[in-house]
Amino acid sequence: MCEANAYIIKEGQEHLIMKSVDILEPSGENVWKLVDIFGDQKIVKGCIKGMNLVDHKILFEAQSG
Amino acid sequence: MCEANAYIIKEGQEHLIMKSVDILEPSGENVWKLVDIFGDQKIVKGCIKGMNLVDHKILFEAQSG
Repeated sequence: MCEANAYIIKEGQEHLIMKSVDILEPSGENVWKLVDIFGDQKIVKGCIKGMNLVDHKILFEAQSG
Repeated sequence: MCEANAYIIKEGQEHLIMKSVDILEPSGENVWKLVDIFGDQKIVKGCIKGMNLVDHKILFEAQSG
């Protein structure tokens, strides 16, 4: 399976948001909808800092200010 | 391997940008750097319209106007 785990960086630390993310879609400005392989959904506020698909990693950064 | 293929929607049609994308990083406002599993790089101008990792698909949309 080729899903990825999503993390958000807050105050310099990575926090796991969701495992096994299948779908990622924009849901507004700097808002993203994640859907995992089980169909569970989460909304993330932040910008995409990077992805490394071979490492199964999606990294968001929380908006400052 | 869990890389994905990147497409851009222009005039309603999907065009393949890059196969076997490993890394995706922001490179400015609505500019993205893609790196494939061979280390080749491409710059994409557009916004992320969606990703479906299980289907190995990253979809960009060209900026209009």
